[in-house]
Amino acid sequence: MDRKAFYKLTSGLYIIGTQAGEKRAGCVVNTVLQVTSTPAQLLVAINKENFTCGVVKEAGRFSATVLAQGIEPRIIGTFGFATSADTDKFSMVPTAVTAGGQPYPSVGGVAVFDCKVVNTVDVGTHLLFIGEVEDSAVLGAGEPLTYAYYHSVLKLKTPQKASSYNPDEE
Amino acid sequence: MDRKAFYKLTSGLYIIGTQAGEKRAGCVVNTVLQVTSTPAQLLVAINKENFTCGVVKEAGRFSATVLAQGIEPRIIGTFGFATSADTDKFSMVPTAVTAGGQPYPSVGGVAVFDCKVVNTVDVGTHLLFIGEVEDSAVLGAGEPLTYAYYHSVLKLKTPQKASSYNPDEE
Repeated sequence: MDRKAFYKLTSGLYIIGTQAGEKRAGCVVNTVLQVTSTPAQLLVAINKENFTCGVVKEAGRFSATVLAQGIEPRIIGTFGFATSADTDKFSMVPTAVTAGGQPYPSVGGVAVFDCKVVNTVDVGTHLLFIGEVEDSAVLGAGEPLTYAYYHSVLKLKTPQKASSYNPDEE
Repeated sequence: MDRKAFYKLTSGLYIIGTQAGEKRAGCVVNTVLQVTSTPAQLLVAINKENFTCGVVKEAGRFSATVLAQGIEPRIIGTFGFATSADTDKFSMVPTAVTAGGQPYPSVGGVAVFDCKVVNTVDVGTHLLFIGEVEDSAVLGAGEPLTYAYYHSVLKLKTPQKASSYNPDEE
């Protein structure tokens, strides 16, 4: 098995936002996929050890924001390399709320989806949340941030809990 | 709901290959996602009406080839806009076989994965196949073909059975 093959998979970068009661949580993922068109459904894989995973489970809803190439790296740092367990990350960036009541960053995104979880699948270290898209909006004219750009241009790292983490990587 | 938001999702383009007994089938998808790292698992969404879907179900295995930006459009045409029901698409392109016995195009790809189906999830029009990656290889040094490039540079279309088909599109 050549782990370098996995670097050839293409993905975008997203912030998942969710709120259950008073608890708000969010994280960065590269694991959003449109699985059906009619009805429109998005899937996201989230590590079970990630605080956001438990809150999506509880809320049964999430927002998925497509990040812009021009996003401030600070926002990725806040959502990607910290935990929502003891910090409300959304208090640290300008935040809006979807019709379904889910928080999302109101800067740094090019599109947002408002999803209701209709199925959850256990795939080991991660849960797959399949969400019916109840609403979607384009937020700006920028280019979407791809994972390839994130690595090769921004030179940012993959956290260990990510689906695409390479155990052979230094 | 603004359907244009879905165009902001990033994905690659892949050929799924599979063989059950004498039956070989394959199709083009943009729905491959790495869902876990340990063990490495890939997910693919395939339309139930697609002949390849039934063969993957029967075989319990599939190959996923990451297409190269420089792939001959003819190969995409063969795998993307025809059915495997009455044609062996792999007889029309140079073909290799993974260790697990699954066919894949030996030209036009930058990486290939050999997957064993460990879970199947029904999401309506599509099935999700979750495959444990038993082998993977880098095939060439080219850039992976992204769905964005496919649309904006190659000006190719999205078939109606695709997860990302936009019902509002002309």
